[in-house]
Amino acid sequence: MKNIDGGICAATGFTAAGTHCGIRKSRTKNDIALIFSEKRAAAASVYTQNLVKGAPIAVTKKNISDGYAQAVIVNSGNANTCNSNGVYIAEETCRLTGEALGIPAEDIVVASTGVIGQQMFIDPFVKGIPELVKLLSKDGCDAATEGIMTTDTVRKQAAVETEISGKKVTVGGIAKGSGMIHPNMATMLVFITSDCAISPKMLQKALSAIVKRTFNMISVDGDTSTNDMCTVLANGMAGNEYIDVEGRDYDAFYEALYKVMEDLSRKIASDGEGASRLIECVVKGARDYDTCAVAAKAVIGSSLVKAAMFGADANWGRVLCALGYSGADLDITKISVAFESPAGHIDVCEGGFGVDFSEELAKKILTEKEILILVKAGDTDAEARAFGCDLTYDYVKINGDYRT
Amino acid sequence: MKNIDGGICAATGFTAAGTHCGIRKSRTKNDIALIFSEKRAAAASVYTQNLVKGAPIAVTKKNISDGYAQAVIVNSGNANTCNSNGVYIAEETCRLTGEALGIPAEDIVVASTGVIGQQMFIDPFVKGIPELVKLLSKDGCDAATEGIMTTDTVRKQAAVETEISGKKVTVGGIAKGSGMIHPNMATMLVFITSDCAISPKMLQKALSAIVKRTFNMISVDGDTSTNDMCTVLANGMAGNEYIDVEGRDYDAFYEALYKVMEDLSRKIASDGEGASRLIECVVKGARDYDTCAVAAKAVIGSSLVKAAMFGADANWGRVLCALGYSGADLDITKISVAFESPAGHIDVCEGGFGVDFSEELAKKILTEKEILILVKAGDTDAEARAFGCDLTYDYVKINGDYRT
Repeated sequence: MKNIDGGICAATGFTAAGTHCGIRKSRTKNDIALIFSEKRAAAASVYTQNLVKGAPIAVTKKNISDGYAQAVIVNSGNANTCNSNGVYIAEETCRLTGEALGIPAEDIVVASTGVIGQQMFIDPFVKGIPELVKLLSKDGCDAATEGIMTTDTVRKQAAVETEISGKKVTVGGIAKGSGMIHPNMATMLVFITSDCAISPKMLQKALSAIVKRTFNMISVDGDTSTNDMCTVLANGMAGNEYIDVEGRDYDAFYEALYKVMEDLSRKIASDGEGASRLIECVVKGARDYDTCAVAAKAVIGSSLVKAAMFGADANWGRVLCALGYSGADLDITKISVAFESPAGHIDVCEGGFGVDFSEELAKKILTEKEILILVKAGDTDAEARAFGCDLTYDYVKINGDYRT
Repeated sequence: MKNIDGGICAATGFTAAGTHCGIRKSRTKNDIALIFSEKRAAAASVYTQNLVKGAPIAVTKKNISDGYAQAVIVNSGNANTCNSNGVYIAEETCRLTGEALGIPAEDIVVASTGVIGQQMFIDPFVKGIPELVKLLSKDGCDAATEGIMTTDTVRKQAAVETEISGKKVTVGGIAKGSGMIHPNMATMLVFITSDCAISPKMLQKALSAIVKRTFNMISVDGDTSTNDMCTVLANGMAGNEYIDVEGRDYDAFYEALYKVMEDLSRKIASDGEGASRLIECVVKGARDYDTCAVAAKAVIGSSLVKAAMFGADANWGRVLCALGYSGADLDITKISVAFESPAGHIDVCEGGFGVDFSEELAKKILTEKEILILVKAGDTDAEARAFGCDLTYDYVKINGDYRT
C-alpha cells in the first residue's frame, strides 16, 4: 500500500468539481461541490447521532437505502438544518443534480454544512449545478474540497493505492471539519471514493468498524454537529474480484480504507478551529479497546489539557484528572504518563505519582506542532488512539462571532 | 427567610481565620484557612466522583464517618493529589490542627486545592496552624475565604436567616471554584455552617438532594476536579427543636440550605476562569427533572454556545445542536428558545425552526453580565436550571500556563 495524490479523483472513474454559486455572499470561497462516478457505485454512509439532524441526512438515507449511488452534491455556507423548507431544498438539489447529470435523483447523496437555522433558497443551486456538471474533471479534487470548507484553513485530502486479487485498487477521500467536531458514529463531512469491487453490505461493515476508531476518536470542542456524515462510494472499476465476504481481499480493502480515514482524522484534528498543535493521546494496557478509547478521548477532550498544550505546559496532573473522570474502569495506581514529539520523550508520572523531570526538555517537546500523550494503564495488548488539538485564543475569536 | 452577611461566621458558635503559611511561594495570597465550631457539629459531605481523588478526601471521609466534626482545615496552592506522601500530609495536618485546638484529630475535616501532582511538605502547616488558631474570630470569614481561593477573582460567600420551631436559624457558606469546574456529585470546595439542630442523617439527606440541583448543575470547563468537596457543619446552637424526621422544620432548613447553595453556585459560575458573563439555562416542560437537567447542562457546557455568548452572538442554532446531542429524550419539533437579560427578552426559535428577530435587540440583551437562555421543551411542570459562563480569551490565557 502506498500514499498517492488526487484525493477523491484518484480512483478510476471518479471526477469532481467545485465553484461559487451564491449560497455564501462573498465570492472568496467556493460554496458547492460535486463528485461523480462514471458507473453506479456501492454506497455506505454513517451519520450524526445528534437528535437535531440536517435535512439532507434524511434525503441521503432514503436515496442510498438500496446500497447504491452515483454522485455526491454538497454545499457549504448554510447547514440546511432547522429550516422549515429544509427537506424541499435537499430534494430539489438532488432533482436538479440528477437532471444535469442525466441520472436518477435517487442515486444522489446530498449534504450541507454551515450556519444552523438560517433561511435557505433554491436559486443558487438552479444556477450552480449545471455549471458544476460542466466543470467535472479528474483535476477537480481541490476545487471540490474548497467547496465544502467552512472555517477550515487547509484542504484535507488523502489517497492510497493497494493490490486486491491482483488488481490495483485505489481509495481516496476529502474531509471538512474544524469546529463543532466531536463526532458520534460519524464526523463532519467526509467523502471517500474507491474503484474497489465490493458489495454495499461489506462496504458498510468496513466503514462502520473504521469510523469507530478514526473519526469518532476526534474531538475539537466537544460539540457533536447536526450534519456529520461520512459516505464511501466504491464503483468496482478496479476490476478486482468482487468482495462479498470477509477474507484476505476484504482485509486489504479494510486496511486501505483505514489508512485514508485515519489520515483524514489527523488532518481534521490538526486543523481544529484556532489550533496551533495536533494532540494525539494513545492509551495502552487497559482492559479492552473500549476502555482505552474512553480514556484517550477524555484526555484530548479536556479543556484544561488543551489549554496546557497551547501553553506548552507539562501539566500532567490534568491528564490524570481527565483519566479519572473519563468513566473508564482504570486502576489509577498503574498509570504512567509520558509526553513525546519530534523533540524527544519525557516520563512525567509513574504508578499514579509524579516523577522528577526536566522542565526545560518538557517545554522543548511540547513546543512542537504534533504532540503525543502516552498513557500506560496496565499490561494488556489493548490500545486506542484519539485525535485533538490545543485550545487557543483563536478558537474563542473564531466562535465569538461566527455568524457575522 | 432573609439574606445576611457573615458567610460561615454568621451562624452562632462559628469562627474562622485565614493566613499565608508558605505553601504558595508568593505572600500576596492567603494559602490556609480554618473554620471552628464551639460545639461538635453534625457533619455531612459530598465528594468528587473522579477516580483520581485528592488524599484529603480519604482522610475526611474517615473522620466524619461517625456523622460529627468540629473544625475544617483547608489549604490552597497544592491539591495534595497524586503525591506519594499525600495521606501522611493530610493526616498530619489533622493531628496538628487537633493539637492546636485541643480537640481530637478525628473531628477535623481536611481539604486541599491547587496544582495536582506536586511534592508537598509539612513545614508550612507546622508553622501556620498554631497561627491560624490564634487568628480565629467572628470577623474571620473574609480571610478564610481568601485562604481557599486559587484563580478565583472574587470571594464567594452567602448566608441566610430563617425561623425553625420558633428559633432563628442561620445557614452560611463559602466556596472556591473557578476552573476545573464540572462537578459530579459535589463541587470544588464549599464549606457551609449552620447553628441548626439537625441529625447527621437528615443533614446528609438535605445536602445530597440539593447538591444535585445546584453545584452539580454548574459547568465552567467540563473538567471534573479531583478534589471537589462540599461539607456542611450544623452545631445545634440555634436551639430549635432537633430535626430528625422530614416535616415542616426539615423543609424550612432545606429551603435555607438550598438558598445558600444556589447563591454560591451562581457565584462560582459567574467567576468561572476568564468569564465575562454568567450564563444560566432553564429548560422547562420535558418529561421530568432529570431530562430537563441533562438538556440544560449540555447547553451551558457547549464550547460553541459559550464562545457565542462571549461574542454576544444570538447563535441559537448552537443551543439546538447542544440539546440534540445532550442525550436528553426531547421532541425537537416542540423546542422553543428565547434569550433574556435585564435588557429584555427575545424569542429566537419556535417548534424547532428559527423565527425572525431583531439582531439589534438580541445584541443588547446578550451584552449584559447575566444572560438567561430559556428553553421550552413541552408542556409538563418539570424544570431544571444550569449555571455556566462564557468562553473567553482569558480562560485560555489563565490555563495556558497555570503552573508557572
